[in-house]
Amino acid sequence: MGPIEFTGDRFAIGDVRLLAPILPSKVLAVGRNYAEHAAELGNEVPVRPLIFLKPSTSVIGTHDVIRLPADSERVEHEAELALVVGKVAKDVPRERAHEVIFGYTCANDVTARDQQRADGQFTRAKGYDSFCPIGPWIETTFDPSAVRVQALVNGQPKQDGNTRDMVFDIATLVSFMSHVMTLVPGDVILTGTPEGVGPIVDGDTVTIAIEGIGELTNPVRSR
Amino acid sequence: MGPIEFTGDRFAIGDVRLLAPILPSKVLAVGRNYAEHAAELGNEVPVRPLIFLKPSTSVIGTHDVIRLPADSERVEHEAELALVVGKVAKDVPRERAHEVIFGYTCANDVTARDQQRADGQFTRAKGYDSFCPIGPWIETTFDPSAVRVQALVNGQPKQDGNTRDMVFDIATLVSFMSHVMTLVPGDVILTGTPEGVGPIVDGDTVTIAIEGIGELTNPVRSR
Repeated sequence: MGPIEFTGDRFAIGDVRLLAPILPSKVLAVGRNYAEHAAELGNEVPVRPLIFLKPSTSVIGTHDVIRLPADSERVEHEAELALVVGKVAKDVPRERAHEVIFGYTCANDVTARDQQRADGQFTRAKGYDSFCPIGPWIETTFDPSAVRVQALVNGQPKQDGNTRDMVFDIATLVSFMSHVMTLVPGDVILTGTPEGVGPIVDGDTVTIAIEGIGELTNPVRSR
Repeated sequence: MGPIEFTGDRFAIGDVRLLAPILPSKVLAVGRNYAEHAAELGNEVPVRPLIFLKPSTSVIGTHDVIRLPADSERVEHEAELALVVGKVAKDVPRERAHEVIFGYTCANDVTARDQQRADGQFTRAKGYDSFCPIGPWIETTFDPSAVRVQALVNGQPKQDGNTRDMVFDIATLVSFMSHVMTLVPGDVILTGTPEGVGPIVDGDTVTIAIEGIGELTNPVRSR
């Protein structure tokens, strides 16, 4: 992406509404990338990254409302570190993956767990509008190798993992995905969720907190 | 989408290169939407549309090259009728689905069958660059209810189905998908493939022919 031009204007954070920090062309994600999370859902750790897509229409920013679909009985939070792609990238070697990363943000890979189990394919369960909160902003100087990734529901800790426990690290994910499809600037890659996923219901507030980035907080509402 | 303005200029079809007729925000597709195709892959017909996404980076136009990935032993053609969304659409009732459709085109849901079986998720197997040929153009006056959908490899017929055999018809697909996610103008929806899918290899030419639309032809090459 091109250089950012600063206007010099400053606003108090409480006086502004933060939009999603990027409107991605595509959102790529990876399933079962923490061994203890794979186990809690009764799955094996995959032999290679198990990739899937979320539609761009599922993206919302911090403080936007997660809307629960009427036909799911069980919607769950999944705290994830996300990265934003900064360059057109195809067939990137693992050791050059860092060159195509613009920065990092928090993400919540919201999932209708009952629909995920019913369909097998993840697209419907993870594709609803508002099911991809990302934000609050993009950190462009950040070491993702060993940071705490948490989910809190109504302030209570639910997930508390660390990126050092990823099955496939970020360089491996970027390289693998770029060997399948061209990554373009603004694409967002979700890097998997640690153990402790659980339900969110009408009236809840869910926060994804990542050490060194910040907090992504969303209210949860029924339609 | 807005009205089209014609310039009055005309060119012979042989003198131009047709690009993909749309660069979609997202490509939605449906698995197992013809009973005999579900059976040939050993699958049951689903109780509701089994939706999945292909990335926009997989889209190519007619005569563009389908590139076979080095790590697949079996890439197959899937002839499909595709529709192009013309309006922002959410929660569209089945009986109003036709109002949000801009037009129809041919698509080839190219699939690395071995990777589809290995992953369970369809994203990698169907997500490679060049794995979503669409075209040659968009027909805006077209009745999709009972048209012949064919795939030919090197001129030999391989698939020969009819859209009247869809498990879920187009209005049902559009309504179902729009209840999950917002459809936006330019989104492309692939409507499933009839029986007869089979391999394409280096040097082949594959054509998707749909009665009333035209032919989408792509050469197939190894990397």
